[in-house]
Amino acid sequence: MKYLRENYTMLFDFYELTMGNGYFLTGFQDKISYFDVFYRQNPDGGGFAIACGLEQVIEYIKDLTFTEDDIAYLRSKGCFDERFLDYLRTFRFTGDIYAVPEGTPVFPGEPIMTVRAPAIEAQFIETFVLLTLNHQSMIATKASRIVRAAEGRAISEFGSRRAQGPSGAILGARAAYIAGCAGTACAIAEERHGVPATGTMAHSWVLMFDSEYEAFDTYCKLYPTASTLLVDTYNVLTSGVPNAIRAFKANGITKCAIRIDSGDLTYLSRKARKMLDDAGLPDCKIVASNALDEYIIRDLLKQGAKIDAFGVGERLITSKSTPVFGGVYKLCAVEDKEGNILPKIKISENPEKVTTPHFKKVYRLIEKETGKAIADYITVHDETVDTSKPLTIFDPIYTWKAKTLTDFEAVELLKPIFRDGVCVYESPSTAEIRRYCAEQLELQWDEVKRFENPHNYYVDLSPKLWDVKQLMLHKLTKSNDPEKE
Amino acid sequence: MKYLRENYTMLFDFYELTMGNGYFLTGFQDKISYFDVFYRQNPDGGGFAIACGLEQVIEYIKDLTFTEDDIAYLRSKGCFDERFLDYLRTFRFTGDIYAVPEGTPVFPGEPIMTVRAPAIEAQFIETFVLLTLNHQSMIATKASRIVRAAEGRAISEFGSRRAQGPSGAILGARAAYIAGCAGTACAIAEERHGVPATGTMAHSWVLMFDSEYEAFDTYCKLYPTASTLLVDTYNVLTSGVPNAIRAFKANGITKCAIRIDSGDLTYLSRKARKMLDDAGLPDCKIVASNALDEYIIRDLLKQGAKIDAFGVGERLITSKSTPVFGGVYKLCAVEDKEGNILPKIKISENPEKVTTPHFKKVYRLIEKETGKAIADYITVHDETVDTSKPLTIFDPIYTWKAKTLTDFEAVELLKPIFRDGVCVYESPSTAEIRRYCAEQLELQWDEVKRFENPHNYYVDLSPKLWDVKQLMLHKLTKSNDPEKE
Repeated sequence: MKYLRENYTMLFDFYELTMGNGYFLTGFQDKISYFDVFYRQNPDGGGFAIACGLEQVIEYIKDLTFTEDDIAYLRSKGCFDERFLDYLRTFRFTGDIYAVPEGTPVFPGEPIMTVRAPAIEAQFIETFVLLTLNHQSMIATKASRIVRAAEGRAISEFGSRRAQGPSGAILGARAAYIAGCAGTACAIAEERHGVPATGTMAHSWVLMFDSEYEAFDTYCKLYPTASTLLVDTYNVLTSGVPNAIRAFKANGITKCAIRIDSGDLTYLSRKARKMLDDAGLPDCKIVASNALDEYIIRDLLKQGAKIDAFGVGERLITSKSTPVFGGVYKLCAVEDKEGNILPKIKISENPEKVTTPHFKKVYRLIEKETGKAIADYITVHDETVDTSKPLTIFDPIYTWKAKTLTDFEAVELLKPIFRDGVCVYESPSTAEIRRYCAEQLELQWDEVKRFENPHNYYVDLSPKLWDVKQLMLHKLTKSNDPEKE
Repeated sequence: MKYLRENYTMLFDFYELTMGNGYFLTGFQDKISYFDVFYRQNPDGGGFAIACGLEQVIEYIKDLTFTEDDIAYLRSKGCFDERFLDYLRTFRFTGDIYAVPEGTPVFPGEPIMTVRAPAIEAQFIETFVLLTLNHQSMIATKASRIVRAAEGRAISEFGSRRAQGPSGAILGARAAYIAGCAGTACAIAEERHGVPATGTMAHSWVLMFDSEYEAFDTYCKLYPTASTLLVDTYNVLTSGVPNAIRAFKANGITKCAIRIDSGDLTYLSRKARKMLDDAGLPDCKIVASNALDEYIIRDLLKQGAKIDAFGVGERLITSKSTPVFGGVYKLCAVEDKEGNILPKIKISENPEKVTTPHFKKVYRLIEKETGKAIADYITVHDETVDTSKPLTIFDPIYTWKAKTLTDFEAVELLKPIFRDGVCVYESPSTAEIRRYCAEQLELQWDEVKRFENPHNYYVDLSPKLWDVKQLMLHKLTKSNDPEKE
């Protein structure tokens, strides 16, 4: 499906261009810089996040180009040199990008994207890259929690009307589907991104008819193979469920569903289940909605609610409990004129905020015996992990905590996405990404997937990278000229 | 400024079309329905909200049209009648819309928009209307709080990189400006919506040079009239401020600023202020940023922080403390074939959730003596308030609590926006809306503007409307067939 795509070249923080103009005029525009995208804390106190949004970053980078209107606007600001504005006329992204595929579980502190490009270009894309990865990774991470809480029952994303803007609704539905939701109520998310869209009736349908039964009967005749009747317009147990049963029977429908959108969902679903079973409708599903999230769903199921599927709205589409995902974009290296890579580090009073320098690789180490991921292992870009030999990994803080792996696989996470400005990666379909996400989650131990106080997954550094970092830390703190986070 | 605008016709909840198809096939498509948009609770425990987003609703309604691709997609779903798909080919909005102008302070329970249209059309626009008004009203309301906390100091919106999608960033910047922010970092929000965009440097600028002084000096030479230097890359007081002073002096700059983005903002700003004053730079402003919101800003100022302007990011652009604005879209009346308006009500176990029936008007009553708003007064559509006579208003619950107004003005809040599908309203410029918003806020008592436990502003009903509501409530509860919220 093709659709008109807005061009987001101008979605930058203004300082990216005041700096760009400055780099241009001071001869820094070709200085090759490396930036990592990473985050520091898992949302909702969970054990990981789901990387998401790469496809929209790729589209953005491909579209990057200034129109004459854009140039005219920038000129009107009165602070840009004409030579710089002229340079923007033919501005294109010419660098390299590496990223983890969408749907990959990721962990704090490891690069989920690395950008290598001339300074102006690398700086320029910061805002859109962060915005997109932050938003979609946040929604995917939240959706993954909610899907896990439902223990195999389908979750539908229902939140468009409470989303933060149109793209919050559309791309949020995409991210939620990638993380395991069965579908969405948002039609445009299907048309554009292949997220299955479904929907049946609102209370207004029922109110439009003279009686609830007439509303149900009409609906069953119109949609005999997809009859989900909303049973709480008047009273679930005395009116809605009996009328639904009567309508299903009158129309000979057995594969059907009812939806309950208010009241005590445990109590009502159990009573409704019994009524449906007693009426000979064991295949009639019960769908529940109304201010749900992973905690409420977990509690409902614990209490024996008889719910087959859930509709989840505002708490998913805004990630209400953690509506900000704090991905950052930090310089990790520059190249000198000879092309040597000079690692850069930023230190901070807060040790958690110290960055890991250098152009890096990330390996996921998987134990062959269990098929489970043991740790992520970050190396300098020119290292390779030899799985034929034992590998000793160690905690980067408590270095005496070490472990030697023998029978393991090492999967490189960062894939080449752009090379010299050319996209070398084909985005899988949204459904393929969803399958990949489910497979990758299977590699994680249940202990890592707990909602609260999960097992702290190891993200370790290779000895070579650890040495680089320690050396820089000691040198910087000795020079008493600490670079700031 | 013209720009390519995405068409959001397909941004609907799927059930709006399964119902639409059903209305079409059962002959209900021309039934005239009235829907109100209103909300029930002020965000963050505040005293009001700021209505925002109307301009984007108008654009959406004007753009409403299905393409052949859209029709093909809908056909592929296998649940729509060909006659209905054919009807969608020429679908346009043909109804009336009334709304409060953007920037108006509004209160729980009162209509901020009323839609009168054939059932399918009125139902179809629900998702986008709610999404847009909910999002922008939420951000405007949050921004208004933050602006008030700063007591006249400028607030810049800095949050694009943490926004929930591109439109979250762009339209969020628009809403924040309308509510009083001085501007944004987001360039595209200026290009499209006239929100003043500014920006100077990130830490990466400083790191790109051999020394902080060189970075500052270069910047001052490039931007002598707009030099805001970021002084916390190394150490604010021992390095950043002294280097900034040296660079300002070397370049003969006195109208300038420094920005502090970390550390204790009270302590650092006070020390920095003294250093700048001692250096003969009393006109050098101090800008602060870093995880700010209305509470932190209030506390900083209370502690005597010497800050002239604030940059506010993620807590504004996502309304982090209340990331969902719960506007709803409820049927309030239908017309019979003779064009008589039949009020509709939805009752609920929860009295707060009972709707106010009928096609209505909203008046804001303003006391001439003080120039302040006393109450909003909701009437049936055919009533007018005669300000030459005393008007007695009463609490709709505790009806013995009454007040008689004599010297007052009555301003109608709901303006005609569309009539028979034609837009009859010209959206003011964003800057004009911002001025209007500031004027309208002046009408509100300080007691209503408190952050917590504000005075509860009165939203009263006319005796005629009150009678309609009471009669319907008693009739419905007697008939023991309660319509549900």
